Amino acid sequence: MTTRINRQWRLVARPVGLFKPTDFEWHEVPEPDPGDGQVLVKVECLSLDPTNRGWASMDTYLPAVPLGDVMRGIAIGRVEASRNPAWPVGTRVQGLLGWQDYYLSDGADLRRIPDVPADAWFGALGHIGLTAYCGLLDITQPKKGETLVVSAAAGAVGSLVGQIGKIKGCRVVGIAGGPEKCGWLTQDLGFDAAVDYKAGKVLPALQAACPDGIDVVFENVGGEILDASLALLNLHARISLCGLISGYNATRREPGPYNFGNVLVRRARIEGFIVMDFAHRAQEAYGELGRWLAEGKLKYRVDTVFGLEHAVVSINRLFEGTNTGKLIIKL
Amino acid sequence: MTTRINRQWRLVARPVGLFKPTDFEWHEVPEPDPGDGQVLVKVECLSLDPTNRGWASMDTYLPAVPLGDVMRGIAIGRVEASRNPAWPVGTRVQGLLGWQDYYLSDGADLRRIPDVPADAWFGALGHIGLTAYCGLLDITQPKKGETLVVSAAAGAVGSLVGQIGKIKGCRVVGIAGGPEKCGWLTQDLGFDAAVDYKAGKVLPALQAACPDGIDVVFENVGGEILDASLALLNLHARISLCGLISGYNATRREPGPYNFGNVLVRRARIEGFIVMDFAHRAQEAYGELGRWLAEGKLKYRVDTVFGLEHAVVSINRLFEGTNTGKLIIKL
Repeated sequence: MTTRINRQWRLVARPVGLFKPTDFEWHEVPEPDPGDGQVLVKVECLSLDPTNRGWASMDTYLPAVPLGDVMRGIAIGRVEASRNPAWPVGTRVQGLLGWQDYYLSDGADLRRIPDVPADAWFGALGHIGLTAYCGLLDITQPKKGETLVVSAAAGAVGSLVGQIGKIKGCRVVGIAGGPEKCGWLTQDLGFDAAVDYKAGKVLPALQAACPDGIDVVFENVGGEILDASLALLNLHARISLCGLISGYNATRREPGPYNFGNVLVRRARIEGFIVMDFAHRAQEAYGELGRWLAEGKLKYRVDTVFGLEHAVVSINRLFEGTNTGKLIIKL
Repeated sequence: MTTRINRQWRLVARPVGLFKPTDFEWHEVPEPDPGDGQVLVKVECLSLDPTNRGWASMDTYLPAVPLGDVMRGIAIGRVEASRNPAWPVGTRVQGLLGWQDYYLSDGADLRRIPDVPADAWFGALGHIGLTAYCGLLDITQPKKGETLVVSAAAGAVGSLVGQIGKIKGCRVVGIAGGPEKCGWLTQDLGFDAAVDYKAGKVLPALQAACPDGIDVVFENVGGEILDASLALLNLHARISLCGLISGYNATRREPGPYNFGNVLVRRARIEGFIVMDFAHRAQEAYGELGRWLAEGKLKYRVDTVFGLEHAVVSINRLFEGTNTGKLIIKL
């Protein structure tokens, strides 16, 4: 029996606004060896996601992380010690392994994943790929020639959504912050147009980029970004509601979109989803995404931070928009 | 050739807030005899609907009524003179005949209707019945045992929606203004509970009436009424967006629902519709509604005003909630 030191970030305060360093505490504890039926997973790579903010502050689609517990996080790792024959040593897994070095499990909350590099897994497959694939195709059924608008388009999910839209024959318009991100969308990823929300008012720029109106919206942001899309909806438009990141750090109650009435007038459909709802669709999604990757039809960027100790200072980059691609922590 | 006097209400100003008498002008003009291919329809009964407010002020799903034109209105009537063999004298029709005695048409914008009394037609069939039937069943697919919340539940559409929900086995909760309306819902129409929005805060009362949360919302109102329902959504709830009457007379830009984020967290679906979208479903809807009427499973109230001259003073009752049942004008 060896005793492993498990470094952990524990959540100790409910964040107000952006995360603060004092919302977390660093602990180093011995990790027990697995008991009968248990496995010990060594965490290799941690995904930082906008939804982490919600998990830290309140019950949403998952209960809030209890104060004092290890911060919840999606991660991949490898079984390092096992007393469960279903999960032999060396098995590569994904799960809510948390912001720590080691995770003890009975296997029920783990999922086997293929042996692709962590960058590709989190950049274009995994929960990001499944979110983009099903959130676009299952929820909105985009048709050839339709105009698709993607917000947070240079983000991990948004950049995949736009490329899948192109594969399906849509005119794709991305909304992102700054000329570098917008240039990446149009020059490298094949978006038809990009709107820089930092460069001026979104609505007139989006209107210019969508001369035939908007048929499909993949929404990650909310607030005035969503309002601009709602203003331009075509009849029977579909809006896939993946995230509302503009409000995640709000310290007061934010109103819903001012142009909400257009959902009625244009007879549109808004549908929210969480990637967990599509677990049963993973096989098809990973098959298609993997094929497009192999064919060079999908590109992705990964913004890698090395060292668990940097998780706390890195997470806010998602809300400040300073990450370039999928933000991950390699341990 | 006889010359008929056609009394008309013409829209002469865009309303600000509630309609004002000065937004309309009364005209009495001679109505020409129908030309070749035309028919002259004598208007029998005019429907006053919340959507009239939108038609008067701006382009929505139909263009705004041009200033100086006869006010647009859904009405039924009978062909009184015809030079079109497809529409013989005596044919009973529905159409956008307007706030006037006579309507001249080439037939393309008319729809034949059966010879039921105007009360039954506008109370439980016609555009009201089709709105309730398809807006509930096609949009939300309510299942037995689910909780359905209907706002403006004592209104023409809402009262039918709730009864259809009961026929389909739902627990039905209505939101209405005042004890008389609420009593009608629970004692006469078989609603399981009614929330009086004038009696106090809506959210706690609605929560008490929906101990298992809300699976389906039929929304006619918007504002804080919709917000209360959104706060209580169950996973995968469906919201049929039929109207947003609380905002129709707004003189400033109203925000969308504060609890909009719950559409994401609870993975709900909001879908707007207009009754015109369901024209192809009319045969099934009228068949079913007619059968339920004959079986005594559907009740309706009609609030009848006699005389076209009272249209202008009557329309605001829809927004003040002082009508009891479907508001119609018999000419």
